[in-house]
Amino acid sequence: MITAAALPVTSRIDATVPLARWMDASLARFERAADAQLPAVSVQPQRLHEAIRYAVLQGGKRVRPLLVYAAGEMAGASGAGLDCAALAVEYVHVYSLIHDDLPCMDNDVLRRGKPTVHVAFDEATAMLAGDALQAEAFKVLADAPLAAGVRAALMRELAFAASTAGMCGGQAIDLAAVGQPMTLANLEQMHRMKTGALLLAAVKMGALAGDAPALASMERYARAIGLAFQIVDDVLDVESTSAELGKTAGKDAEQGKPTYVSVLGMDAAKEWAARLHREALEALADFDRRADRLRQLADFIVLRSR
Amino acid sequence: MITAAALPVTSRIDATVPLARWMDASLARFERAADAQLPAVSVQPQRLHEAIRYAVLQGGKRVRPLLVYAAGEMAGASGAGLDCAALAVEYVHVYSLIHDDLPCMDNDVLRRGKPTVHVAFDEATAMLAGDALQAEAFKVLADAPLAAGVRAALMRELAFAASTAGMCGGQAIDLAAVGQPMTLANLEQMHRMKTGALLLAAVKMGALAGDAPALASMERYARAIGLAFQIVDDVLDVESTSAELGKTAGKDAEQGKPTYVSVLGMDAAKEWAARLHREALEALADFDRRADRLRQLADFIVLRSR
Repeated sequence: MITAAALPVTSRIDATVPLARWMDASLARFERAADAQLPAVSVQPQRLHEAIRYAVLQGGKRVRPLLVYAAGEMAGASGAGLDCAALAVEYVHVYSLIHDDLPCMDNDVLRRGKPTVHVAFDEATAMLAGDALQAEAFKVLADAPLAAGVRAALMRELAFAASTAGMCGGQAIDLAAVGQPMTLANLEQMHRMKTGALLLAAVKMGALAGDAPALASMERYARAIGLAFQIVDDVLDVESTSAELGKTAGKDAEQGKPTYVSVLGMDAAKEWAARLHREALEALADFDRRADRLRQLADFIVLRSR
Repeated sequence: MITAAALPVTSRIDATVPLARWMDASLARFERAADAQLPAVSVQPQRLHEAIRYAVLQGGKRVRPLLVYAAGEMAGASGAGLDCAALAVEYVHVYSLIHDDLPCMDNDVLRRGKPTVHVAFDEATAMLAGDALQAEAFKVLADAPLAAGVRAALMRELAFAASTAGMCGGQAIDLAAVGQPMTLANLEQMHRMKTGALLLAAVKMGALAGDAPALASMERYARAIGLAFQIVDDVLDVESTSAELGKTAGKDAEQGKPTYVSVLGMDAAKEWAARLHREALEALADFDRRADRLRQLADFIVLRSR
C-alpha cells in the first residue's frame, strides 16, 4: 500500500470524514439511479435482465461514477442528467469486466467476492449481458434530461473511450502482451487506453454535464489519476490477498502479464504513483473549493487498499 | 423461394434493372465509406483492426445500409451524414454476427462463405472486435456531419434497437427457446426484437437524417418488411444449400430452433411473407416516387434467394 506520508500535506487534511460521507451519499445515489434505470427482472428476457442487475448492482468501488459526480460538482451540474452520465460510464466499465472474465479472455471465476457472471449464469448470457450493457450506456445518455447538444457530446466522449482508440484497444494490446517483454512506454500506452480512457471520460462527462470549466486542466488531472489508478492496482495485486481485493490476487504475475511492478520494481512503482498524485493535484491548483471532491478522490485512488 | 407471381403487379414493374443499378452504386458507396471510416490495419492494435475490417468488409447483402439509403432518399437526405447512419447500423449488425458465431453462442465456422472471425483470428479477438464495433457505431454517429439534435436522435434509435428491448433481448429469447415449444406470437415477438428492431432503426435513421417525413408510415413499412425478412430467411434456410446462402444451411432445424417454417409450415410461411410484403407497400401508398427505392427493397427482401 502507498502510505499517506507520500502525500502532500495540503491534501492529507481534507481526505478523511467529509469524503467518506460524500462517497456514501454518492454511492447510495448511484445505486438508486441504477436500480431505477435498469430493466426489471420481471420484464422479458428475464434471465438476461437478472444477469445485468447481478453484474451492475453487486457494488464495487464505483470510482468512475464518483469521478463523474465530483467533476459534475465542480462544473455546477447535479440532478438526473449527472446520474445518467454516471450510469453510462459504469455500465461500460461493468460490461468490460463481464467480458474480461469470460473463459476466452482472463477466465476468472471471482469478482468482487462473488462468482463472475458466466459462472453464476452461463457464457452466452454473460456475453449478451455485456453487449446489452454497452447499448444501455448509450441509451441512458440518449434519454438523459439534458440538451441535445450535451447528450451528443456525452455520447461522443463515451464512444471514443470505449473504442479501439480506448478501452477495447487497450484490451487487445494487453492480450497480445501476455508472456511478451514490454517497455515502460508500451505499458503506459496500454493502460492509458485500457483503463485511462474511461476514467478520463468520467471526468470529462461530469464536467460536460455542467458548464465544463477549464476542460484542459480537468483532462490533465484525469490522465494523471488514471495512470496512478492502474499503478496502485498493480501494487495491490502483489501486496494484497484475494479476500482483501474481492478478486483473485497475484493473477497478473501468474499469467505472465507485464505490470508496473514487474517492469519498474515495487519501490519505483510506488514513487511514480505518488508523483502522479501530486501532478493531479497541481492540475487543480487554480480551482477553488468546488474542486475539493476531485482532490479527495485523487487521494482516495492512491491510498486505497483494494 | 417466394415467386414473383405472389407480388402485386404495380411493384413488379420497377423491381428489375434500376434497382440493381442503384443497389450496386449504394453498395459501392457503403464500402468506400466503411473503408475510409474504419481504423487502418497499420494503427495499433493492428490485429484487432484487421479482424474488424475482415468482418465488416467481406460483403453481405447490406440490407440495413440499403434501407438507410432508401429511407434517406425519401427524406431528402444524402451525403456523408447519411453514410454515417448506414455505417452505424451495419456495424451493430456485424458485431452481433461476430458474437453470434462464437462457440458459446451458435458456434458457427462459416459466414458469407468465409471462416467466421473467431476461426480466422481467435475467440478473444472476435469478442473484442464485436465489442469495439458497437462502440464504433456510436462513434461514427457522434462524429457525423449533422446537427447535434439529429446526431442525438440517431444514437437514441440505435441504442434502443441494440438494447435488451431490441436485438440483445431477442438474442436472449432465441437462446432460451432452443428445444422448447414456441407459439407463433412468441416467435414473432422474438424476431421483432432480434432482427426487426435494427431493420426498423435503419429506416427511421435514414428518415431522421433528412426531413423525417411521415414517420408513422415509415415505421409501419419497416415493421412489415422486418418480419417478412425473417420469414424469408427461415424459408431459405430450408430450401437452399450452404453454398447458395454462404452460411451453414438447415442449421436452425438441426439445432431444434423454432422457425416460421417449423411453426407454420412452408406454405403458410410463404403466404405470410407475401401478405407482409403487400402491407409494406400499402404503408407507402400515399408517397410519391421518392418512395420507390423503399418499395423496390420490399420486393428485394421477399424475392431474394440468399
